[in-house]
This record gives sequence, C-alpha cells and structure tokens, in this order.
Amino acid sequence: MPVPAFPPLPPGFLDRLSSILGPRNLLTGGDATAPFLTDERRLFPGAAAAVACPGSTAEVSALVRACREAGVPIVPQGGNTGLVGGASAPAGSLLVNLRRMNRIRGVDPANATLTAEAGTVLATVQEAARDAGRLFPLSLASEGSAQIGGLLATNAGGINVLRHGNMRDLTLGIEAVMPDGRVLHGLGGLRKDNTGYDLRHLLIGSEGTLAILTAAVLRLSPLPRQRVTALVAVSGAAQALALLDLLRDRAGEALVAFEFMVQATVAMLVEAGHGFPVDPALPAFVLFDLTSADPEAPLAAQAEAILARAFDGGIVLDGTIGASEGQNRAMWDLRERLPEVQKHFGPSIKHDIAVAVSRIPDFLSRAGAACAAAMPGCRIVPFGHLGDGNLHYNLSPPDGMAPADFLARQGDINRIVHDIVHDLGGSISAEHGVGLMKRAELARYKDPVALDAMRAIKAALDPANLMNPGKLLP
Amino acid sequence: MPVPAFPPLPPGFLDRLSSILGPRNLLTGGDATAPFLTDERRLFPGAAAAVACPGSTAEVSALVRACREAGVPIVPQGGNTGLVGGASAPAGSLLVNLRRMNRIRGVDPANATLTAEAGTVLATVQEAARDAGRLFPLSLASEGSAQIGGLLATNAGGINVLRHGNMRDLTLGIEAVMPDGRVLHGLGGLRKDNTGYDLRHLLIGSEGTLAILTAAVLRLSPLPRQRVTALVAVSGAAQALALLDLLRDRAGEALVAFEFMVQATVAMLVEAGHGFPVDPALPAFVLFDLTSADPEAPLAAQAEAILARAFDGGIVLDGTIGASEGQNRAMWDLRERLPEVQKHFGPSIKHDIAVAVSRIPDFLSRAGAACAAAMPGCRIVPFGHLGDGNLHYNLSPPDGMAPADFLARQGDINRIVHDIVHDLGGSISAEHGVGLMKRAELARYKDPVALDAMRAIKAALDPANLMNPGKLLP
Repeated sequence: MPVPAFPPLPPGFLDRLSSILGPRNLLTGGDATAPFLTDERRLFPGAAAAVACPGSTAEVSALVRACREAGVPIVPQGGNTGLVGGASAPAGSLLVNLRRMNRIRGVDPANATLTAEAGTVLATVQEAARDAGRLFPLSLASEGSAQIGGLLATNAGGINVLRHGNMRDLTLGIEAVMPDGRVLHGLGGLRKDNTGYDLRHLLIGSEGTLAILTAAVLRLSPLPRQRVTALVAVSGAAQALALLDLLRDRAGEALVAFEFMVQATVAMLVEAGHGFPVDPALPAFVLFDLTSADPEAPLAAQAEAILARAFDGGIVLDGTIGASEGQNRAMWDLRERLPEVQKHFGPSIKHDIAVAVSRIPDFLSRAGAACAAAMPGCRIVPFGHLGDGNLHYNLSPPDGMAPADFLARQGDINRIVHDIVHDLGGSISAEHGVGLMKRAELARYKDPVALDAMRAIKAALDPANLMNPGKLLP
Repeated sequence: MPVPAFPPLPPGFLDRLSSILGPRNLLTGGDATAPFLTDERRLFPGAAAAVACPGSTAEVSALVRACREAGVPIVPQGGNTGLVGGASAPAGSLLVNLRRMNRIRGVDPANATLTAEAGTVLATVQEAARDAGRLFPLSLASEGSAQIGGLLATNAGGINVLRHGNMRDLTLGIEAVMPDGRVLHGLGGLRKDNTGYDLRHLLIGSEGTLAILTAAVLRLSPLPRQRVTALVAVSGAAQALALLDLLRDRAGEALVAFEFMVQATVAMLVEAGHGFPVDPALPAFVLFDLTSADPEAPLAAQAEAILARAFDGGIVLDGTIGASEGQNRAMWDLRERLPEVQKHFGPSIKHDIAVAVSRIPDFLSRAGAACAAAMPGCRIVPFGHLGDGNLHYNLSPPDGMAPADFLARQGDINRIVHDIVHDLGGSISAEHGVGLMKRAELARYKDPVALDAMRAIKAALDPANLMNPGKLLP
C-alpha cells in the first residue's frame, strides 16, 4: 500500500534532535531504523530517515517543538504491533518511538489505579497490578510487546471488553504533548471530573493524529480469585446469543468473556492437529469465562446450573467446563491460536467488524451467503468477541485457488462484507483502527457529518498537520 | 449572578420558528415561559423571549438552521434540574426545551441497550429497562424530572457510579444536531467502534456548547435480584477507605455504592428528628450496597463475613445490615434527605469536589482545618460518593451568624476549599458541571493547555458561537 512521502528533513534538524535526546537516542541508518519501519503485517513499510527515542515528557515536548519549527511531520509509535499501518513513518517524517518511557510512575491501591508511561509494555502493567493485588484487565494476543501509548492511540480491545470495557474505559486520565509542544496534564486519577470537554476520550483512539500520549492513569479491578472456563457447542449464532442472555441474566457481573467460533473455524484447528474437547462436527461454539473476587463464591456450581438450564432449553448441545486452571488455559489457547492456524490454509482476507450484538446472526447469514456466492468454496472462518458484537470475519481460499488469485479478490470481498456491516449500522473497524489501511473505506462508510467534525477538530488542534499526517482521516 | 444578554430577536424570526414547530410548540409571554426561565437554585434567572419545544430531530435541525441564519444563540434545556445555570437562557437567546422528544425508540434486550430521545425522563428509562428485565443503573435525586439530554450534557453521576460509571460510561452512542443543523448519526448500538475521534464522548459533558443531543443508545445491566444494604460506623475517612478496600477485594463486582457521612452530617439528621440506626455519636459513617443478579448468591453471608472481619480488624466500630428491602430503603432515604435537611440549618456553602480516592482523608483534614480557621464554629457537613473520590463538601453557618453574613463569605470559602482540591490534583466540579456558576473558577484552576484545546474545538465546531454561548468556557 503506498505511503505518502514528505519533503526531506531540513539541514541541521537531526543535529538539533541529537542535542535534545543525546546521540544514542536518535537512530539513523538502515540497520538501526529497520525494525521500526517494518510493520506487523509487512504491508506498510516506512522510510523515515531517523527514529527518535525520547526518555521523558520534557524531551517529547522539546522534540515536538523542534519538529514544529522545522515543519517535520511526526509519527508516534508504541510496540509496533498495529495491524493497519498507523505507525508507519513515510520518508520525510520523524518516527518517535516511546519505548524508553517505560516507567510505572506509581500504583495507588486505595484509588485502584496505576500510572504508567506510554512505552510500558502491557504485560508489565498486568504484572505490576497483580503484584499490588489488583487486575489490569486488558488482555490481547500482543500483550507481550504492545505498549500503553499504542493501546491508547488505537483504543485497544481484546477478550475482556465484555466485562471491563476497552482501553478508553480503563483509562482515568492521560498526559500528552500537544502539537504546539505544550504538555496536557491529566494524571489526577479522578473518577469524576465535569470541568469541560473530555480531552482524554478525544485523544484516546485518535491514532497519534492529535497529540503524543506520554502517560496514563489506568483503572485496576479486584483480582479474581476464581475462574470458570467453559467451551460449549450451540446450533448457531442465535443460540449463542440465547446463552449470552442467560449468562448475563444469572451470572451478571461474573461474566467476563464470551467468544464465538463456527464449525469451519474449529475444523481448521482440528486439521492442524489440535485436539478439541467438544464434538467439532457441531455447528458453532462458545468459549466463556466467569470470574469472582470472592474465593468462596459457588462459581462452578453456578456455571453448571446455568449450562444445565441451557441444555434443557435446547440452547446448548454439548460442552465442557475446565476442571483445572490448566484445562482453562488449554481452551483459551485454542482460541488464541486461531489467527496463526489460519495461516496454514493460505492467505487470509480479514475483517474486524462490529454490529449490535442482536444483529450478529443476521450479519453472519447475509455475509455468509454473499461471500459464498462471490467465491464458491471459500472457507469462511469467523471468530471473536460475540459478547461485544465484534467478529473477526476471515476468509481462506477455496481448495486449489492460487494465493495471488485469492488476494486479488480482497477488494471485492471487503466491499461485500463492509456493505452488509454498514447496512446493519455497524463498524468496519471494531478494534484495530483505521491507520493507512482503512482510510478509503472510512471515506465511503463514515457519517459525513462525523468526518467533517473530525477534520475540523484536527485542523483546530494541529493546524500545521504535523501529527501523523495521512493517517486515519480520509 | 449576571447572565449576559444578546441582541433582540430579529423581526420575523418567531414566525419562522412557529411555522417549523407549529404555534402550540413555541411558547412566548411571561406565564408560558416562566417555568423554563427559573432554575432549580433560583440563582440564574433566564430572560429569553421564547421557548421552542421541537417534537423530532428534523424539527431540531430546522430550528438550528433558522437560528444560524438569524444569528440567534440557542440554549438547550432538559428537565431544568441543573445546579450551575447551564440551561439559563439570556435575553436575545432562544431556549430549546426537548421535553416533547420523550419517546423510547426501542429496547434491544439481546444487545442490552435502550434507545431514548433526549427529553425522556430518567425514571421513565429506568422503568422501561425494568420492564425488559434489565437495569438502567444511573440513579440520582432528580431522577423523576431530569431528562436524558441534560444528563448527557452534564455527564451526570449519582450513587451507582462506583460500579456502573457515570452517564458517559452508560452511553453507547448518540444522535445530535450539530451547529450547522446537520444530524450526527450514532445510534448503531455498537460496543466497539474504532473509526476515528470519539465524538460521543466529546459531546457528552459539553453542556450544550457544541450540539443539541437528540437521542442516545443507553447500556443496560443485568437486573439485580438481591441487594444487601449496610450502614456502619468508622473512626474516620482513612478507616472508610480500608473498608472500601476490603469490600472491593472480597466482594469485587458486587459492590455498587459506597457513601460517606461524618458525625456532623448525621447530627443534622438527628436534630431534624430522624432516627439513625447506628450510634450517631461515632465519628463517621459508610452506607454501602452489594447487589447480585444471581438470586441464590450468598450475598448477605458474604456481607456479614466481610463486616465481621472489618470489625475484628478495628476498621468498623458498629453497624447494621438491612433485614428487608424496606430497611434498605429507609437507610438510603436518610442519605437522600441530607441536602433537604441541611436547609433547616440556614443557607449552605456547597462544593462538589473530587480527588483521587486515596487523597480523601488528606483533603478532609486540610479543608476541615482551613474552614474552621476561616469561620470558627461553622458546621462542616461533607457527604457523598467516597468510592468515587467525590464529596459534596458543604458548610452551614455557625450558631447565631446572620444568613447574609454567612453567604458573604462564600467566595472566600470556595477559594480555600478549591485551592486545596487543586493542590491535590482534584476537580472543582465532579458531577454538576460548570455552567455559569463555575466559569470563573475554571479559568483559575483548569489546565491552560486543556482550556486552549477546548476553545479551539469550540471555535472549530461552532464558529458563530451560537450553541449555549457564555456557558462552560471561561
């Protein structure tokens, strides 16, 4: 995908940066910069001449001022695990990688918060919370390398959104460097603050186009002392929703995650040699977690009673409850392997869609019929966060189709799927963001009133258009 | 407090409005407009010549276009229960009251959402949710008259924020009429949507200065089937926080509300003739709720075990658990009577502050000492949402002080309290908003970088400055 280029860096600019950061923290030359210019999917190669690694908010501020004076575009980058090219740095831009800002500034157990710098890796935050007897509930595949700044910039989701919300819901406040280099201070750790526009929520999810996020106050939850994981078979998405309803109604606040897979998805696991603890020939499957902070809550008995009821009501066809934390983890491991296992079956055409939870069955039947008609024999392998109305709606090629022929159809298939999503009032990017990949799609599907408001805000806060230009906004 | 005036309405303007709305829905003349021009506290009298009552989003849109063409400022209004003058309509402005837009557009149990128009009264939404076997958890004193639009515009809080969040956390999407009259559509009911800046969160809490909210998709929770209410005595705020910690740790997701009062607050209840079920001579009190969706969860036993532990640990001095829903309600009734009871003791000087929960004890001791020094003998009667770090820090006059003398000190006392809040990184408006009342305070305390960003956004989205001008932004 083409990444736009900007004019070359002005003379003396790198010397100025070097004096701000120290020469060790300004990377130049192909070997040093290459890891930062290659994205997770290898779709959006960067070409920036330099990577700046500031070590403090003051350094970020000085660096932004220098870029502003020199007219150099800035591309902020976290763990570089994004999937849509949001952190790809074109020629003529400066890539600002936050990894040196990786301190946990403090844990406040009584406030149930943790303050972390933007470059802190998610797993490090999870661990620090656990050490303080608390849970930081955001959990996703890249948690070993994704950083807080990137997770904020893309409002990351993952498997526990159903109960705990996504990154914005888990953030009480932010610190950020604005496009003019001034620092926005918002780390008071407040749960309530009605003193004007919520700039925190405006910057979260703005993909680096409005500011560089430098730190955040994150909300911690009680540490669960029990978990019940169940994998059950259902006859389809409508029955999965009936189970979701039953679980919400009876287990309420204990329901943390509710994932969905169909037979074709599980068939890939089985063909790839993985064992599956429920009859894989059944039509669809749900994996869910109940947790409780109370070590004595009768959680397993509750899960069994709910499932018995669901079985009697014809909602659930078969199922198993993990008898140990090891079994629980093994079931989640199957779920987490799906993206990797799909690679054994050739290239993928992927979608990251959301609709109202109640519309998922309609979406699946319409999209399934349309994709099968457009590409007979393709493997449609949706999976994902049904409890949030969010599915990774992925396709693999029909037997015998050449990878290039399959990928040549990506645009058509995207159009078919996204048109249906749009018709159902849904989102074409539920959790991955827009970046470079979905800018053109955004122009097509996003409410034009919203787009105009976004453009007006961008122009107001970043009049020189130096913050991650060319991303997100079509 | 002075409310600025604008130029008189241009000739023919009211006729145009009348043709949009129908003459019955355009109120003019003192008798018809008076109820809309008198605010809850009778501090911010309005003087608008007309009150427009649109019945649909299309009418709001037409009305905004008419105002824009005529250059007439618009003041949106909901249930007119606000405390800071945010809905006061000066001379020369048009008051737009949304009460006719009071339809519940739909309930989607599978998506756990309800779509309501801006003029729907909160109690009506609560009832519709209950009828669908769900809970809409926002709860506050004015719920019988406060409307969804106003609750959104001020990001209302209340007693259940600890578990369920405030209004913005309970809102999945909004519909709004922008300052140019176009309609922003956002009622897809999505739990995940990462396609650009979060305009929902920008408009929520913007107090009518950026758009007129016309409808919202609200998030419903499982209906609680059990509630345990406890009123306990503690030796101070630090011990109350230790109890909060224990409850969060053991009861986790079951803890819904956690309210705090001190001896002086309870003394007013007793002096006013109310019974109090715990020794009122003890230093401080906590009222909390545990709830569960599971009718069989051993919630009462859990509460007893936690309180026994807290008693053994010296955290709790005395206490009672409601033996029936009637007793539970009676305890909450005492809490809810506090604002009214305080009126028996003369005028009040009020504050609506938030700090990090962990800083509440420090705030209370510093503010208590400073207020006592500034006004010896004054009654300091804080109460409120300790679990959110939010207290209504109220003062009543010393015995024998004339009301006027007391109120003449309001500015000094505000300064003392707000300076301490600011020093602790807190907020001078936790849940009531800014409106007219706290604009000057905002200029003093708000991060200037945030203020500049707010002003830039306001100018970008409402360049003619017609949406509730003179409110919120200093």
